[in-house]
Amino acid sequence: MTRVGVVGATGYAGAELVRILSGHPDVELTIITSRQYAEVEFGRIYPSMKGVVSLVCEKFSVENICDKADVIFMALPHKIPMELVPELIKRGKKVIDLSADFRFKDVSLYESFYQAHTAKDLLKKAVYGLCEIYFDRIRDALLIGNPGCYPTSVLLPLVPLLKSNLLDVNTIIADSKSGVSGAGRSPSLVAHFCEANESLKAYKVAAHRHNPEMEEVLSLEAGEPVKITFVPHLIPMTRGMLTTIYANLAQNIGPEDIQNCIASFYSGRPFIRICPDNTLPDTLHVRGTNYCDIGFKLDERNNRLILISAIDNLVKGAAGQAVQNMNIMLGLDETKGLVSVPFPL
Amino acid sequence: MTRVGVVGATGYAGAELVRILSGHPDVELTIITSRQYAEVEFGRIYPSMKGVVSLVCEKFSVENICDKADVIFMALPHKIPMELVPELIKRGKKVIDLSADFRFKDVSLYESFYQAHTAKDLLKKAVYGLCEIYFDRIRDALLIGNPGCYPTSVLLPLVPLLKSNLLDVNTIIADSKSGVSGAGRSPSLVAHFCEANESLKAYKVAAHRHNPEMEEVLSLEAGEPVKITFVPHLIPMTRGMLTTIYANLAQNIGPEDIQNCIASFYSGRPFIRICPDNTLPDTLHVRGTNYCDIGFKLDERNNRLILISAIDNLVKGAAGQAVQNMNIMLGLDETKGLVSVPFPL
Amino acid sequence: MTRVGVVGATGYAGAELVRILSGHPDVELTIITSRQYAEVEFGRIYPSMKGVVSLVCEKFSVENICDKADVIFMALPHKIPMELVPELIKRGKKVIDLSADFRFKDVSLYESFYQAHTAKDLLKKAVYGLCEIYFDRIRDALLIGNPGCYPTSVLLPLVPLLKSNLLDVNTIIADSKSGVSGAGRSPSLVAHFCEANESLKAYKVAAHRHNPEMEEVLSLEAGEPVKITFVPHLIPMTRGMLTTIYANLAQNIGPEDIQNCIASFYSGRPFIRICPDNTLPDTLHVRGTNYCDIGFKLDERNNRLILISAIDNLVKGAAGQAVQNMNIMLGLDETKGLVSVPFPL
Amino acid sequence: MTRVGVVGATGYAGAELVRILSGHPDVELTIITSRQYAEVEFGRIYPSMKGVVSLVCEKFSVENICDKADVIFMALPHKIPMELVPELIKRGKKVIDLSADFRFKDVSLYESFYQAHTAKDLLKKAVYGLCEIYFDRIRDALLIGNPGCYPTSVLLPLVPLLKSNLLDVNTIIADSKSGVSGAGRSPSLVAHFCEANESLKAYKVAAHRHNPEMEEVLSLEAGEPVKITFVPHLIPMTRGMLTTIYANLAQNIGPEDIQNCIASFYSGRPFIRICPDNTLPDTLHVRGTNYCDIGFKLDERNNRLILISAIDNLVKGAAGQAVQNMNIMLGLDETKGLVSVPFPL
Repeated sequence: MTRVGVVGATGYAGAELVRILSGHPDVELTIITSRQYAEVEFGRIYPSMKGVVSLVCEKFSVENICDKADVIFMALPHKIPMELVPELIKRGKKVIDLSADFRFKDVSLYESFYQAHTAKDLLKKAVYGLCEIYFDRIRDALLIGNPGCYPTSVLLPLVPLLKSNLLDVNTIIADSKSGVSGAGRSPSLVAHFCEANESLKAYKVAAHRHNPEMEEVLSLEAGEPVKITFVPHLIPMTRGMLTTIYANLAQNIGPEDIQNCIASFYSGRPFIRICPDNTLPDTLHVRGTNYCDIGFKLDERNNRLILISAIDNLVKGAAGQAVQNMNIMLGLDETKGLVSVPFPL
Repeated sequence: MTRVGVVGATGYAGAELVRILSGHPDVELTIITSRQYAEVEFGRIYPSMKGVVSLVCEKFSVENICDKADVIFMALPHKIPMELVPELIKRGKKVIDLSADFRFKDVSLYESFYQAHTAKDLLKKAVYGLCEIYFDRIRDALLIGNPGCYPTSVLLPLVPLLKSNLLDVNTIIADSKSGVSGAGRSPSLVAHFCEANESLKAYKVAAHRHNPEMEEVLSLEAGEPVKITFVPHLIPMTRGMLTTIYANLAQNIGPEDIQNCIASFYSGRPFIRICPDNTLPDTLHVRGTNYCDIGFKLDERNNRLILISAIDNLVKGAAGQAVQNMNIMLGLDETKGLVSVPFPL
Repeated sequence: MTRVGVVGATGYAGAELVRILSGHPDVELTIITSRQYAEVEFGRIYPSMKGVVSLVCEKFSVENICDKADVIFMALPHKIPMELVPELIKRGKKVIDLSADFRFKDVSLYESFYQAHTAKDLLKKAVYGLCEIYFDRIRDALLIGNPGCYPTSVLLPLVPLLKSNLLDVNTIIADSKSGVSGAGRSPSLVAHFCEANESLKAYKVAAHRHNPEMEEVLSLEAGEPVKITFVPHLIPMTRGMLTTIYANLAQNIGPEDIQNCIASFYSGRPFIRICPDNTLPDTLHVRGTNYCDIGFKLDERNNRLILISAIDNLVKGAAGQAVQNMNIMLGLDETKGLVSVPFPL
Repeated sequence: MTRVGVVGATGYAGAELVRILSGHPDVELTIITSRQYAEVEFGRIYPSMKGVVSLVCEKFSVENICDKADVIFMALPHKIPMELVPELIKRGKKVIDLSADFRFKDVSLYESFYQAHTAKDLLKKAVYGLCEIYFDRIRDALLIGNPGCYPTSVLLPLVPLLKSNLLDVNTIIADSKSGVSGAGRSPSLVAHFCEANESLKAYKVAAHRHNPEMEEVLSLEAGEPVKITFVPHLIPMTRGMLTTIYANLAQNIGPEDIQNCIASFYSGRPFIRICPDNTLPDTLHVRGTNYCDIGFKLDERNNRLILISAIDNLVKGAAGQAVQNMNIMLGLDETKGLVSVPFPL
């Protein structure tokens, strides 16, 4: 059985990895690391898992993790992974990195939004882990740059339509709404209960670092430069992300054409659900799951398409997609460990 | 002292009218009506006001309300007001109607989104009560069509820029997010706690009845036909509305031009607050107030403006603006009864 | 494979049964019924399960359900089950009823809090399905009265201590706090988002129908009459129930004695978790699980014990315990279909 | 006009003081201080008040504040006030301290729960500012120890009954539930949105520092030692505190006796509202107000009284009561600055 490890297991994405990997039928979670909680039992930090997950957090060391794991998930803030990953790769480990460090093809893009990149060679070998789009490359990858939550929610509905040249690429706007868990587990004023509850606000308007990440992929898939306006908002709920995308149509088409384009593109893909007849996505319907629900409405008066996607930001937007990437890399069914009947509410 | 009455006092907008009017220093709330709660003390229905508001709900009758009140607020579903208001106006009463019945200039527009209009003559005399835009007409009006919450949040940031021809009128998109109180007090599945909590969804995409209401005003103010794409969303919080507007610039201008245009247009208007230096509106900051906070960001890469407004949907989006209209009609300072120091959270 | 059916599948407890049974490895969910949604696909009512649960709701008929299912779950309001269950039992079906109809041994107790009982003979054969207490009887039962959510949260921490005579039975008070899903799916003012959000209140103080249900079991287990004061409260969250129990000690004992009594009583029981060293239960830690977490603190100054339990009201408090009962009745491992790694948040 | 100052104006209680005092008709808020935000405009920290409160935070200095203010509110963590207050008092200022430093009569009680007291002399002169109980002493006080939120919610319903000897003082239990704003504005894991949302838990069970504060007052008022079991809980909402109190009756009395005792004791007190006929308090009904709503139910089977109180923890539980104390000290009507029509929701 493949042995896996999680570096940075006590943040929200890391804890979600622990949840999914602990229940995965085909891998064994053998090591979890944490700077802050070294030598603390995981069930002490996340008591929901007490009696279920018996692992104790360890301090990270290359030796230790390479001894214990064949596939390594990195759930750390950007900048640290690019310092650690080269050694892991050198030792033959497969790595799935949840930070931005290995998401970009264009290193200058990365460097203008983050910092100098110290592992440029690896960047060339890394595959952007948007599973439904890059399945084939992921299968052969050793290193995955796991997509951000916002890019996942923006790219999945858009890519099929852009590849079919159905949209005017100069008119794309993405208005995203995220639950507060996207802000992570470190206490901060923005995620303080009384500041977030009964509050609704935009932030980093047209200035979020997920913006260049989206545009690089969109441009590649459209075959021409695509720039979008991206505005994230913070919503008083724990999990969930809803993205509303606006774009003018490039061709004279109707709703069936849109429906057909998306449905045929994602035919057979288990985690994409197209909303039937005029129903629309709701974050509550994907909570705790790896699904991306997609719906749309054509504003015919304005020749404008409204595309809506819903994901759980911690699952399809982070840990779930990371495990899906691992499944693909290991030649497993991509749904392994990721399917359970969703909660009704 | 002017005597005022509220018809339909037990819905959320009606109750908010009762709150504001009970504390208004220059008018006396003399009568409140309710079909469902006739003869019930108001403090029984809204126990927050027990011991403070001693009025008892009465059944509506033209005689009764005309005896007791000089200014009448109608907080009823559309269709009913147009049946009742003509008689009130005939008897010399001033009327502020919170439904859609008297908001439209173009009766055919009303009729295509609602139903046949049975008081067309009055429609011509009614003034659209967007206080900051139509102050002068409101002063002389006998009948006000009080704006919808969504139109208020969309029109206030847009009108100054449209009047100055700064925006490309073919590119306007409004993505609105509303707290659940906008769905009213009648129990329904959409506003059921467990369906709304931890849920985020769009509804009536490009098909909401507030859409033509906005467009009629925008077209009048822009001096040319304006069509916008409008998408409302439901957010798990009680009060508050945030609207994010996207529009391409029509001219080569910078952020100072935008700032100047909006700030000078609203100079001296007590309920418009322009967010200073890169701060942005948050619904928590206007909760319980009649303010409309406006912020913006220029996406220079895309030559696109992002305008953001925050209001309390029940105050500036309904009852507060209605009282502001009354103040203007009565020649009072428009802030009377509407100013108290806002809560910090 | 055992075929199972759910009668009343579209309420919250019913939907939770559909979720659990659809994922159960040893039974097949073959029929779900609903009056309100006959012939509607389940995924239309609960879109989280679209593409996962393909069943269509049927109208209830004895013939139909007896043809299709061997074990039948009744998730209906009380009074209806006692009319339907006798015929199901007569045809050799095993029945787990989630209403109060088959929970009482003393029919007069039932009749004084509900209504005349029309299936008294069956009442004698029914077993109260509190799995950890009545495991042996459940194994041989044909009909289970599945416990209420409040009684489950009160009885599990109390029974071991009462059986050991450690508590003064005249001093027991249970202060329970429930999430809003306990109010069910039918829209009502009490569960309307804006009335429940930011609200906290007690209801049916010392007058809730779960009170006699608890007392009957407590008295049986204590071997003497036990009367308790029970006060339920409504909390602004979807799932979860926390019960804080107060009781004077009957003996001169310390915290280790309490710990030992509860821990040894529940030794080996997979769904009871005793909180370690001074940690306390939190509903977030049992959300979506069948666990009952139990913690306590001794108020030595007052010789009073404070016992705290946390459950998910829809799982251990309803559907999860019902499936646990089925597992025991069928001779399966009691955890089948009920274990997945809990969410970290 | 009396000049007032707030020391520690940027915490939640301090900000609430700024809100109330800015709108107070008979005092002028002349100075606010903050270590963390010195020289920052208040509206930058709490943008709800931008354009309304124009004060800028200053660093605290005795000279400065004594120059500018006649009455000084201290909204700081305990230990600091007892170091600063003696100098303020010496200079003839009236001081209302919101910390625990001047709440206790018995210094050893303070010292066993907090730390060594460095201003014992002042302790003797300080008056416990529970306005409805100690009105007469407050009128003449120079220094007020403003009650904690939990003690306020426990003492107001209990004191009348204890003074009338209606309760068995050995049986009192208080189960309190508090909104998250009680945890203050400093980011922490316990008040982090994702940890508090959908969570419900007890904390500091029978070990909270408000426990001895309550008991000292209860004992004084009962005329005999009173020990109570006190358990606070954290609830996922911003504002509000509900306390459910249990106590055995000491006499053979009925609900009218309870009603009469409380109602006559609080006759004419503007901020106490007794819930009429079987209605019960709800935190939503006191949100943003200085009211304490009190209701009760007699559990006649168990000869036990259940008393329930609801307050806004930041108003009657902190800043509102502090201003009420100031009003009384200044000989103003005690409701000045504290009455506005409550929000319906």
